[in-house]
Amino acid sequence: MEMNFNQHISGQFNADLEGIRNSMMAMGGLVERQVANAIEAITTGDSRVADDVIRREDEVDKLEVEIDQECTQILVRRQPAASDLRMVLSVSRVVRDLERIGDEACKIAIHTLEMGDQKNNPLCQQAMRYMGAEVVKMISGALDAFTRHDMDGAVDVVRNDKLVDQQYASALRELITYMMEDPRSISQAISILWILRAIERIGDHARNISEQVIYLVKGTDVRHSSLTEIEEQAQKK
Amino acid sequence: MEMNFNQHISGQFNADLEGIRNSMMAMGGLVERQVANAIEAITTGDSRVADDVIRREDEVDKLEVEIDQECTQILVRRQPAASDLRMVLSVSRVVRDLERIGDEACKIAIHTLEMGDQKNNPLCQQAMRYMGAEVVKMISGALDAFTRHDMDGAVDVVRNDKLVDQQYASALRELITYMMEDPRSISQAISILWILRAIERIGDHARNISEQVIYLVKGTDVRHSSLTEIEEQAQKK
Repeated sequence: MEMNFNQHISGQFNADLEGIRNSMMAMGGLVERQVANAIEAITTGDSRVADDVIRREDEVDKLEVEIDQECTQILVRRQPAASDLRMVLSVSRVVRDLERIGDEACKIAIHTLEMGDQKNNPLCQQAMRYMGAEVVKMISGALDAFTRHDMDGAVDVVRNDKLVDQQYASALRELITYMMEDPRSISQAISILWILRAIERIGDHARNISEQVIYLVKGTDVRHSSLTEIEEQAQKK
Repeated sequence: MEMNFNQHISGQFNADLEGIRNSMMAMGGLVERQVANAIEAITTGDSRVADDVIRREDEVDKLEVEIDQECTQILVRRQPAASDLRMVLSVSRVVRDLERIGDEACKIAIHTLEMGDQKNNPLCQQAMRYMGAEVVKMISGALDAFTRHDMDGAVDVVRNDKLVDQQYASALRELITYMMEDPRSISQAISILWILRAIERIGDHARNISEQVIYLVKGTDVRHSSLTEIEEQAQKK
């Protein structure tokens, strides 16, 4: 009888954990679309897509608060330990990064609208397109790695973040040269600067998410570790 | 006998909570000094102070990881509920914001060094000095409000963040005008742009910390609420 009761409790507990993980993945899907749409808005100049991103920002914020509350509820009701506790804590950190990614997508959309008619300017278009596609892949890569407890997938995301950072630095140099040659373009170039920066920040947050995969699986906090240190952690048995 | 035992347990528990709060305050003190020094470096042009800020960034990172581990330990050992749980969760969120503030201070120091000999340029000096002093006050204001469970103090910080945002927007406009008039200044102006941005972000993180005061005292998550909504929450009995 007691065993049935315990099984019942543990079944509910697993359902709770499954619940927050599913909510996190749903939020991840929404955030990934927000970023993809923001990049589409800036590269095609479609202001309706930008409006849509701004309008849906609220949904992202609400999901963060809801999922975080679910996590707190689980802490109170189930008092999880070991890997279950790590699951709850890392979901709560991941949704925080997802919310920040949503913020950055919204900033991209706002700057797209600010640029008005000038938004079809080819300045840094290639960099925005390339970096944008890369960070969208990084978000889904980090979330996939989380679901599958896949350390190699997580390390890949950290590695790609380094590439995005390099791409960003070179786009900035291009932009500054352009501004010096044509001072009339400065206002517009500053908008592009903020957009490039937002894309680069999205990469950082995707990296943060993939660091939580390592915390989840190994229990090690690698938040301030270098790529090499993270690779070593991932290889440890 | 059992009562003594319970008192003993509860005494240890309180000591644990006191412990993370004290560590958080110590980290807050360090981060506040990092910001004040970064602002001093940029406004006086003293590169030794900038070096010092960059050198101490590691300490801030280590404190975040340590305090967060202490919080997790308390969750595991003590399984806190209600206001005790809120204390642990909010300390863990506050140290994350403190770490980000440390990051921004470090960025300011790096840009100060990049600017080399040009760092005594009067461009936006007044805005950096004013905004810098303001955000340092906001950090200590938010931490004081946390210790004293002081809702009014927390609301003041949120209010000051709005002022810093306005100051930031006007400094940006000044900067863009300057760049257009003197394109040779663009590289330097971009460094100043990142510095202004970092100061503005520090204000946002101080606001986040003061939002945790409201969570701690009232149990309400006000992370995506407006100033008016936060003022209302603070006044509710």
